[in-house]
Amino acid sequence: MRRLFRNACIVMIDDHDTILQGDLLIQGAQIAAIGPSLAVSADEVIDARGRVIMPGLVQTHIHLAQTLFRSQADDWELLDWLQQRILPLEAAHDPDSLFYSASLGLAELIRSGTTAIVDMATVHHTDSVFQAILQSGIRAISGKVMMDCGEGVPPRLLQSADLALEESVRLMEAWHKKGAGRIRYGLCPRFAVSCSDDLLRETARLAEFHGLHIHTHASENLGEIALVERERGARNIEYLHSVGCVHERAVLAHCVHVDDAEIDLLARQGAHVAHCPGSNLKLASGIAPVPKLMARGVNVSLGADGAACNNNLDPFQEMRLAALIQKPLHGPRAMDARTVLRMATLNGAKAMGLADQIGSLEVGKQADLIMVDLGGLHTWPAADVASRLVYAARGSDVCLTMVDGQILMRDGSLTTLETGRIQSGATLAIDRLLRAIGAKA
Amino acid sequence: MRRLFRNACIVMIDDHDTILQGDLLIQGAQIAAIGPSLAVSADEVIDARGRVIMPGLVQTHIHLAQTLFRSQADDWELLDWLQQRILPLEAAHDPDSLFYSASLGLAELIRSGTTAIVDMATVHHTDSVFQAILQSGIRAISGKVMMDCGEGVPPRLLQSADLALEESVRLMEAWHKKGAGRIRYGLCPRFAVSCSDDLLRETARLAEFHGLHIHTHASENLGEIALVERERGARNIEYLHSVGCVHERAVLAHCVHVDDAEIDLLARQGAHVAHCPGSNLKLASGIAPVPKLMARGVNVSLGADGAACNNNLDPFQEMRLAALIQKPLHGPRAMDARTVLRMATLNGAKAMGLADQIGSLEVGKQADLIMVDLGGLHTWPAADVASRLVYAARGSDVCLTMVDGQILMRDGSLTTLETGRIQSGATLAIDRLLRAIGAKA
Repeated sequence: MRRLFRNACIVMIDDHDTILQGDLLIQGAQIAAIGPSLAVSADEVIDARGRVIMPGLVQTHIHLAQTLFRSQADDWELLDWLQQRILPLEAAHDPDSLFYSASLGLAELIRSGTTAIVDMATVHHTDSVFQAILQSGIRAISGKVMMDCGEGVPPRLLQSADLALEESVRLMEAWHKKGAGRIRYGLCPRFAVSCSDDLLRETARLAEFHGLHIHTHASENLGEIALVERERGARNIEYLHSVGCVHERAVLAHCVHVDDAEIDLLARQGAHVAHCPGSNLKLASGIAPVPKLMARGVNVSLGADGAACNNNLDPFQEMRLAALIQKPLHGPRAMDARTVLRMATLNGAKAMGLADQIGSLEVGKQADLIMVDLGGLHTWPAADVASRLVYAARGSDVCLTMVDGQILMRDGSLTTLETGRIQSGATLAIDRLLRAIGAKA
Repeated sequence: MRRLFRNACIVMIDDHDTILQGDLLIQGAQIAAIGPSLAVSADEVIDARGRVIMPGLVQTHIHLAQTLFRSQADDWELLDWLQQRILPLEAAHDPDSLFYSASLGLAELIRSGTTAIVDMATVHHTDSVFQAILQSGIRAISGKVMMDCGEGVPPRLLQSADLALEESVRLMEAWHKKGAGRIRYGLCPRFAVSCSDDLLRETARLAEFHGLHIHTHASENLGEIALVERERGARNIEYLHSVGCVHERAVLAHCVHVDDAEIDLLARQGAHVAHCPGSNLKLASGIAPVPKLMARGVNVSLGADGAACNNNLDPFQEMRLAALIQKPLHGPRAMDARTVLRMATLNGAKAMGLADQIGSLEVGKQADLIMVDLGGLHTWPAADVASRLVYAARGSDVCLTMVDGQILMRDGSLTTLETGRIQSGATLAIDRLLRAIGAKA
């Protein structure tokens, strides 16, 4: 199958920030040619006049398990939010509710232009998340949450380190490299304060042995950092490093409160930071020092976190926020549109260890891309394309989403997921969960 | 003409934050009845099942004259942005370019649910802005910009105080109370540093004499405040008060940097603050002390400012930002969803002096309202409606916009404005302006 996009505005995300007016040819799952005017034939020609073709957006911190919890506990104190609503709802998940939560999240992600994610599922029933991911056609790293200690955690979410690791290995064997290699298993200790020293050290060994990613939260909140310092005797990132969890296959979500020594450690180790501006604001965590992280050489990518704390999974909202929130601190030039586009694409690919396969438009790379319509009133008139994409466009402007050459969404319609069935399933599922935790009669 | 919305989720914006499942009847330009199940007939019945009916959004600081400048100078230093691009482009406006700039902005505003604005035009050709406003059917206060001093201003934008006031009076006579009273003239001194003492005092007298609103910028930026203090010998708000420009018919945009004495002065005088979170972030101005302003009794409403510094006119983006940016400073409970909904509706109506006519859904008020579809993937599943509106919905979810009982937009189509003609006119116009200032060959 050969597909040709004609007359597109092609945002390459290369070293020169090239934006090219021209054609892009896809052969099977890969980009076969890019040029001002390709003299080639194709099975399908897609008229992309007035539209942008760009790499699909990569979100490196997502909680598909929490999509159902959107708007269930907003404007709450963080501890109330977590202990009274989010963790109890996670604990109440059954395989069916988790499948609908993941499917709803995936549908939203694909609809708004996300082609790859680093996800954290929940403690139980993680097969449901992988089933939804497989069906959706998205590219993903996901894994079950591991937590073996911590206060205020529903007992059902606590497991021994041995059991957590054993289940992780079982899931890895079932799902790693499935979906034509699009799915990979990632080890997900929730965060330092919910994981024993043993669990984290074993996680690091397992990751090393199997070449797996580690996906965890780090230094999101001042209370968390103080607790780690008290219990483990070191700053959070230093502690995570001491147990082997800070390296080039580690994706650390948030890193809002990191000191200079920790930033240097992250850079030296080649660890990846998943910046989540929407969630960091909404949960009152603060503003991550992204310009400094990047200046010191840390790879920073973007993520919407969960719908329970964002409340959107729209990568365009996150791009806009990532740019806007740094400016009062660092001036209007900080986090310019081109930097943000790179964060949301190639830096995400780097975090996933896939910079040679996705994240930019290059011949030979996988065809993970999106088409964006900049012809709406809110992105008019024509002007700098990077600026319009970052500051003015919305997820609803995405008119085609493709992963591995497969069209997952076109003109608003999803091809792999049934939105009607997902939405009704989601409604029944959240109702069941709210009853289970006593939040609904 | 009687129109009946059936089975809507009605967000009233009353003292009890009532959200009612039921029907809403419009007779002519007014709301005639609201109730759980109205036994009435109507010329048209609109099925609003699964949709929200809420007051139209009111944006109290808009620059329609700058819509054409979207994405023309992003990530620039403020002074470069203003002096090298925005003011020269404003100076280059001709009646036709200004008409298309205003029309494009109005189309975007109406499409995304804004029913009333407080606008600031530019120095010349302001009739074009009023023509576009009249045609659009939106409710608006607007007026020509007055500026008679200041450094770095293109000479074409400077006028003597006498001329500026004379032209203002001419425009007031032509446009005040036109459009069945939807249009009102507002006096618009740009800001203290571009207006002489005389101009501001005469503006205040004229506003008093004719009962007009004053719309100006105040305390957006630290440099501006320092300059006012140096030149006029007082803090900005105190100075504006001393020349008669701080009172219950004054809408002061921004107020990012105001001290306690100024906040008390604003409250005592009943002046209105137009909070513009997107613009304040993008231009690196800072975060306005909105929780404190509101706690001390200042009426704070919302505005997107201009497309040149936002770069959107989407009121949903502003609502979301207004909530999010305060939380790292004041905790997750600050600026909850209900407070933000009120800011974006009834507080805006108060700022316009129209709280008895618009801003909430009450029998006898004007039918300025919108219908919002919360059935999208990104606002699913059903949960707290205020939270979904503020944190998850987007301008593109608005499916009907009505002012004075007239439908201005339905299912994405505008009824009073021709989008195709506006978009092509806008393209030609910005091209002409860029050539005129030498930014394009």
